[in-house]
Amino acid sequence: MIAPGSGALVLTLSCADRPGITARVTSFLFENGGNVLEAQQFNDCENDRFFMRVEFDPKGSSTPDLRARFAGVAGDFGMDWKLASRDRPRRVLIMVSKFDHCLADLIYRWRIGELAIDPVAIVSNHPHAVIGATDTGDIPFHHLPVTRETRAAQEAEVRRIADDTDAELVVLARYMQILSDEQAAHFSGRCINIHHSFLPGFKGAKPYHQAHARGVKMIGATAHYVTTDLDEGPIIHQAVEPITHADLPAALVRKGRDIERRVLAEAVRLHVEERVVMNGGRTVVF
Amino acid sequence: MIAPGSGALVLTLSCADRPGITARVTSFLFENGGNVLEAQQFNDCENDRFFMRVEFDPKGSSTPDLRARFAGVAGDFGMDWKLASRDRPRRVLIMVSKFDHCLADLIYRWRIGELAIDPVAIVSNHPHAVIGATDTGDIPFHHLPVTRETRAAQEAEVRRIADDTDAELVVLARYMQILSDEQAAHFSGRCINIHHSFLPGFKGAKPYHQAHARGVKMIGATAHYVTTDLDEGPIIHQAVEPITHADLPAALVRKGRDIERRVLAEAVRLHVEERVVMNGGRTVVF
Amino acid sequence: MIAPGSGALVLTLSCADRPGITARVTSFLFENGGNVLEAQQFNDCENDRFFMRVEFDPKGSSTPDLRARFAGVAGDFGMDWKLASRDRPRRVLIMVSKFDHCLADLIYRWRIGELAIDPVAIVSNHPHAVIGATDTGDIPFHHLPVTRETRAAQEAEVRRIADDTDAELVVLARYMQILSDEQAAHFSGRCINIHHSFLPGFKGAKPYHQAHARGVKMIGATAHYVTTDLDEGPIIHQAVEPITHADLPAALVRKGRDIERRVLAEAVRLHVEERVVMNGGRTVVF
Amino acid sequence: MIAPGSGALVLTLSCADRPGITARVTSFLFENGGNVLEAQQFNDCENDRFFMRVEFDPKGSSTPDLRARFAGVAGDFGMDWKLASRDRPRRVLIMVSKFDHCLADLIYRWRIGELAIDPVAIVSNHPHAVIGATDTGDIPFHHLPVTRETRAAQEAEVRRIADDTDAELVVLARYMQILSDEQAAHFSGRCINIHHSFLPGFKGAKPYHQAHARGVKMIGATAHYVTTDLDEGPIIHQAVEPITHADLPAALVRKGRDIERRVLAEAVRLHVEERVVMNGGRTVVF
Repeated sequence: MIAPGSGALVLTLSCADRPGITARVTSFLFENGGNVLEAQQFNDCENDRFFMRVEFDPKGSSTPDLRARFAGVAGDFGMDWKLASRDRPRRVLIMVSKFDHCLADLIYRWRIGELAIDPVAIVSNHPHAVIGATDTGDIPFHHLPVTRETRAAQEAEVRRIADDTDAELVVLARYMQILSDEQAAHFSGRCINIHHSFLPGFKGAKPYHQAHARGVKMIGATAHYVTTDLDEGPIIHQAVEPITHADLPAALVRKGRDIERRVLAEAVRLHVEERVVMNGGRTVVF
Repeated sequence: MIAPGSGALVLTLSCADRPGITARVTSFLFENGGNVLEAQQFNDCENDRFFMRVEFDPKGSSTPDLRARFAGVAGDFGMDWKLASRDRPRRVLIMVSKFDHCLADLIYRWRIGELAIDPVAIVSNHPHAVIGATDTGDIPFHHLPVTRETRAAQEAEVRRIADDTDAELVVLARYMQILSDEQAAHFSGRCINIHHSFLPGFKGAKPYHQAHARGVKMIGATAHYVTTDLDEGPIIHQAVEPITHADLPAALVRKGRDIERRVLAEAVRLHVEERVVMNGGRTVVF
Repeated sequence: MIAPGSGALVLTLSCADRPGITARVTSFLFENGGNVLEAQQFNDCENDRFFMRVEFDPKGSSTPDLRARFAGVAGDFGMDWKLASRDRPRRVLIMVSKFDHCLADLIYRWRIGELAIDPVAIVSNHPHAVIGATDTGDIPFHHLPVTRETRAAQEAEVRRIADDTDAELVVLARYMQILSDEQAAHFSGRCINIHHSFLPGFKGAKPYHQAHARGVKMIGATAHYVTTDLDEGPIIHQAVEPITHADLPAALVRKGRDIERRVLAEAVRLHVEERVVMNGGRTVVF
Repeated sequence: MIAPGSGALVLTLSCADRPGITARVTSFLFENGGNVLEAQQFNDCENDRFFMRVEFDPKGSSTPDLRARFAGVAGDFGMDWKLASRDRPRRVLIMVSKFDHCLADLIYRWRIGELAIDPVAIVSNHPHAVIGATDTGDIPFHHLPVTRETRAAQEAEVRRIADDTDAELVVLARYMQILSDEQAAHFSGRCINIHHSFLPGFKGAKPYHQAHARGVKMIGATAHYVTTDLDEGPIIHQAVEPITHADLPAALVRKGRDIERRVLAEAVRLHVEERVVMNGGRTVVF
């Protein structure tokens, strides 16, 4: 449950590993009056890289001040870093096509205060009537149909909406269109997709039908960041469920809906709580 | 636990689906004095095929008599069918290379009477000393090294051992050699492999290293029948476990051992209990 | 997905086990023109009881005719039995208190045609505003507050609503009131509750806080039929998720919502598809 | 896999939470030349307690020196703390009764170098022949039968063996005798039991039969530290598997064996890797 009034901050960082990083970071926080609430680190011994996430109560220090002061530490270690509010809802643009179970799920979690998001826009390549089972309330809905010919213009319009709404995150909630390389690059690191298979198995179209044809005994879903390399972006979260020979593709689709929506919701939660740090083509999830 | 003295039988069958099959089969059993202990059926509406497995107490009818009498029913419906003892331990030839966790596990389950198998031979391409952590007891061990040049002769020797021991099932318990098409065809439907990945993801060599490089969040194992199409045989059983960014390949290998051995043991159990019926490139598992 | 126009039927039955039951039942269906689509049986060798479920296409036979004719078979074997439409949506009365995640979930599954229910009424001991995150649409909402003194009258009113709407099933979707023995008995076998713990652990109030205090490493939820013996009714479905020391009660509540809603939805699906047959204080789930 | 030559150390600690602990601890390690390999912390905001585990390479500092120097830091914060080798195998006394699947499993994991233990003794209340399926090799085996009358003497003998072998950990690997309060207190914090149920459900005897009688849909196992309060010790690890109505108690026992052995092995691994820190009646597992 979100405690919106809290001033807690989250510091995430990564840099080349060397002795003393944790000591320096935590000493900095201590000297600046911060009270650590939660902290994790990961020393990737394969590529000698260090990753850290610290949640702390700044106890009166302002965020800009902390940022300015931490820049020195970060510079010494060559850090990629971010200092962000823990609880401020992230502005999210949600894209959807015909299947609205992930959309409905995200909206419900937002409404009951479970997920710290602020849905600023819904974009669909289909009219609103297609997702009639979902009460989208006051969230602005944009019907942006797309064809091969109009893709560039449609994607520009999505970027315009993202800019106008200051969207921090784009969630592809079963948006069944492939983004152009330009669009994928534009939203790099801030666009999460739910793929309805347990990647890297069954890439491409109709994964549940592929799974049925292959006769696997479990199906799953994968939430990942979108990159120009389709179905190959850094994976944030995955889950699976057992199936049997008796599960026809329709049953797989039904079971898949449950997996997809909770995998996507978990990935969005991890992202907005600043728990995901990129490690090349993989993620560190704290 | 196996009750070896029991005379229970298992009838498995498949045929084109049409009305009245179950009625005919169960009436046959009733009229012949059989008492059904367990029964399952599956109507595959996609390819109009019917599958059935019945465990029954023959109450004095002899197996040859039942077989002779049932042949008529089977002929009427064009059935693929099998009538087998439920409890007689199946004669199993186990093949292994350097990693013996699956072998050790199968032997333990056999020794405590959990798995109705009779291990008639262990074949390895390495000397016995390599699997020194496993007490293979009196099970005959055959060291059959193999190179590209000697493969044909080595495989012939494996077939000879299988013939001499009347092996009904060959279990590749982390046997790290690819069978020739001839060998795969020879043991078709009676050779189970454990693949140390969640197929169809990460086919081929070093799947745990592939999984680590891709950054997946779960790993798994797959037990399947061996076919000439490598890593594409009918899947019998699969399982997965969650992993994190902190799991190096060595940890994946460790976690994988646990998954592999229980997936393989379960597949062997399902096979020897006559619970697996082939449905093209897939399985029906009762 | 529901194919509402289908005329498929489901026959469920249980009786003392003896040879020939399956033969008799399936022969009956064959002789009456029925085409079996799916069938399961269970021989409970511990109490010598037989259970069966058959889905079939009656091919023109009317349900009343089949019922009349099957009564003879059922009489011979002393069967408890039921012949019902497979696809007709069951009329469901949903009861809820302050937490509406299960309610919202059931409604969503109904709206997209996943769950063959017809929600005829929502009853809450709180005003509608309390479940403001859920779009209940046109489903009649009844605010029936309850105190110790008014329980009898309130329960009578619930029964009246159930009667007036011909409700076939009552779903306690996080209804946080204990039914009286009379009410539990009245709805016996047709009232499903979701208990927010992995029964029989943590019966009673605030199970997630109990779980946190005990320091368990997994939490779960249990869907069961309501009986006069509180938290002891026949279990239909259960699921669990791993937790860690870092999960405070609030996190358990959040994780629990996901488990509860999918466990309850699955139990309702199993019930309305006539897949649950009572076996004393336990269930057989086909 | 264990790298036995490594000199890596593990520091674990807990104390009242207050700002600056992490900074002080990691600065200490940095100033003393330590290179952090892995670190976790947990701020228990419910009881204002702080927990930490750091794996580090001491880079030439001797363990006694580090211990002497860290005592000052620990004193300032009132820490419970421990500094231990990461890789030195822990001396383990294993107790067993008639069921040896957990014993066989621990021995196998030790033999292949997966588990950093050194089995110094096996104690059983039954003769060695009872566990004939397990190759106990050169591990000293002690047959110590026990009755109500001889319990005190038998337990004294167990303590003597533990003393003589410098056992650091006692593992009750399906030892079906209840320890006296004195014995439980003697081995407090260094005695792990595997309970063959998903505690707190089905405490006491024959949990699988209890589970079958109740009709639950999942069974599990629990590894916990032994305390004087039977079945109530701090839980280290738990796991479950789904079951169905068709699983008789014998099948539950079979499925349970798999769960028990991997839950116990995981708990032992967590303990010997110094990943478990006590938090009252609960555990923090890093």
